[in-house]
Amino acid sequence: MRSWTRAELEGLDREDPLAGFRSRFHLPAGVVYLDGNSLGALPVDTPARVARAVQAEWGEGLIRSWNDAGWIDQPARVGDKLARLLGAAPGSVMVADSTSINLFKLLGAALALRPGRRRIVSEAGNFPTDLYVAQGLAALLGQGHRVDAVASEALADTLDDQTAVLLLTHVNYRSGRMHDMAALTRAAHAAGALVLWDLAHSAGAVPLNLARDGVDFAVGCGYKFLNGGPGAPAFLYVAPVWQDHLQLPLAGWMGHADPFAFQADYRPASGVQAAQIGTPAVLSLTALEVGVDLALEVDPRALRAKSLRLSELLIDLVAQRCAGLELVLASPVAGEQRGSQVSFLHPAAYPVMQALIAQGVIGDYRAPDILRFGITPLYLRHVDIWDAVEVLEAVLRSGSFRDPRHARGGKVT
Amino acid sequence: MRSWTRAELEGLDREDPLAGFRSRFHLPAGVVYLDGNSLGALPVDTPARVARAVQAEWGEGLIRSWNDAGWIDQPARVGDKLARLLGAAPGSVMVADSTSINLFKLLGAALALRPGRRRIVSEAGNFPTDLYVAQGLAALLGQGHRVDAVASEALADTLDDQTAVLLLTHVNYRSGRMHDMAALTRAAHAAGALVLWDLAHSAGAVPLNLARDGVDFAVGCGYKFLNGGPGAPAFLYVAPVWQDHLQLPLAGWMGHADPFAFQADYRPASGVQAAQIGTPAVLSLTALEVGVDLALEVDPRALRAKSLRLSELLIDLVAQRCAGLELVLASPVAGEQRGSQVSFLHPAAYPVMQALIAQGVIGDYRAPDILRFGITPLYLRHVDIWDAVEVLEAVLRSGSFRDPRHARGGKVT
Repeated sequence: MRSWTRAELEGLDREDPLAGFRSRFHLPAGVVYLDGNSLGALPVDTPARVARAVQAEWGEGLIRSWNDAGWIDQPARVGDKLARLLGAAPGSVMVADSTSINLFKLLGAALALRPGRRRIVSEAGNFPTDLYVAQGLAALLGQGHRVDAVASEALADTLDDQTAVLLLTHVNYRSGRMHDMAALTRAAHAAGALVLWDLAHSAGAVPLNLARDGVDFAVGCGYKFLNGGPGAPAFLYVAPVWQDHLQLPLAGWMGHADPFAFQADYRPASGVQAAQIGTPAVLSLTALEVGVDLALEVDPRALRAKSLRLSELLIDLVAQRCAGLELVLASPVAGEQRGSQVSFLHPAAYPVMQALIAQGVIGDYRAPDILRFGITPLYLRHVDIWDAVEVLEAVLRSGSFRDPRHARGGKVT
Repeated sequence: MRSWTRAELEGLDREDPLAGFRSRFHLPAGVVYLDGNSLGALPVDTPARVARAVQAEWGEGLIRSWNDAGWIDQPARVGDKLARLLGAAPGSVMVADSTSINLFKLLGAALALRPGRRRIVSEAGNFPTDLYVAQGLAALLGQGHRVDAVASEALADTLDDQTAVLLLTHVNYRSGRMHDMAALTRAAHAAGALVLWDLAHSAGAVPLNLARDGVDFAVGCGYKFLNGGPGAPAFLYVAPVWQDHLQLPLAGWMGHADPFAFQADYRPASGVQAAQIGTPAVLSLTALEVGVDLALEVDPRALRAKSLRLSELLIDLVAQRCAGLELVLASPVAGEQRGSQVSFLHPAAYPVMQALIAQGVIGDYRAPDILRFGITPLYLRHVDIWDAVEVLEAVLRSGSFRDPRHARGGKVT
């Protein structure tokens, strides 16, 4: 474990090939933002682009903008841009709805492709909405499907000839632990099952190659590492091999083969277009497109290298400076097993995080005992990690987190 | 039928108690906008409000804005505002997802409340997404539900002890014909069925009183008469009597009783909160809130009176000036049977509408032969109707719509 000085970290920032991206984001003064895995920062191009959508496209163009401003094609256009980030073929990604709704659609489609099988295998500790969607769909279908959420290390062994779908989040929202997508996909396929990956904490954060890894279905989130804004629309991926066999559990007019023919009977559009249901949220989608365009400018290897460097720096500095202060690393030590976040356990995690936030170090608390720090290499510097650990050490040593104003109130994050 | 001069209509505009609202909207120069029932116009307050959400709330507040800017409560807050427009109790309306997704949720909930019954009765010619959602859900449930889309005049008689749900759109998107909500709701209840009303063309356009009329469930659209912007989030209504018995077919983390406890098992929130599924699209929702706030400033009786006056004026002027030009009124003559639009049949409806749009009169074409004109009393003047009919008459008399540049291309609206 190397010992650093702040000056040395300033040197690393000067040599950082991604340093120029920091100026592409608006970052509040006095803040070290370590929560870009919950809500990504605002790209500086976004306000003007959204203003154009509001004033020129909506205000001046009115209904004509569905054609003239390309609104009607925007979900597929942004989907195709995302496909490049995800290592997916053009035409295999669509932006639509929320991650939860997209999970419902694709889990339904996957179950329909494995009609004789009744197990949905997921992971204990998966993000709750993934489990809720699966539980809800199983109950709705009334065919005896069950959701088995097993421990991470038992996943490969539990797959059997009753398993219809392996439903996993690639990077765990609490620990940041990253699954081996290729290996687990192979294991699922070997058991005759399909895979549905939730990329909420992966897209824009870690290298992905859905085509190479043989992924069947995936969903993901626009407002985290893609910097698409609060509640940005989500996306979904359908492997080309399944696009002609999609039986989605939700049918709406934007997924019809000819929506403006206004026919009485549903006839699905081909491919992922069928997974559009209602009218897309154009203003939110426009903000997302700016974030996706920005992500496409980045060399993914450089992004991953810096993510690992910053994460290791955080782990090392905490080990060096916060020893004996009750922090326990909750993320894998090995970089290849980690997404782009570092989490620690602390018995007073909630008030500790409140005290950090009060001093401008914004991370996230996750019940019951997790301090979660998102690593976003596009706008974080090495010195930001140093400064955050300085504040963390001071908060823990001083006990300032025991101040009643940091006690749990009605706050949601 | 009264004969008018443009000067007389200018006089009516001067006396119009709603005239002041026109300045609250951005309207492009040289345009008479008769398509506010497809996409409402931009309120002048919206750009600054959206810019604040982007720059101050997202850019500066970052993740803190879920609490500090009230994002987390925004779907329920805007829902409560909508409840006042809809004649609904506080806590019975939620903003979420799209109209199609909300139809799916509430149709599923309604069917669960009528487990022995297998008919979903709707109307032939209902907006396609309503039928697609019902067809899709019936197929998904696999319990033998069927969707009977019957002629409008046969609706009351077809309700029987097998009917689970009467699923209707209040104002028809093609003809503008408005159902008697109270009478059909009573008829459904008399048959032991529940009602689910689609208010897409009603909310913000015609007087509504869901509580008085005994409505069980309703959904509606934010981007038409509510002026919420392209793809604005939709809303849903659940009568208080059903709020403790909701069995929704979609379960997501924002509908959990305690989403930030991140529990493994789904436990629905009480009431309409359970109908939130994923993270709300905050930027689009913020634009919608401006439109809803504006709608709440309006006296609904004055709105309806002006809507009827403008609609009758359009019908009269077309009858007087376009006689013999192949236009046939496709909307009810009686005002109380009409929503806030006037439609005409024409054998060349598509190129006629294109020729109108080319001359700044923006209405809508609906396949195969409908010219549809939305009447939005907040930003339309009596003289706008006059000017639109002048252009319509000129287009029809000159035959300019036969110009090949108005022929059907790949346009979607």
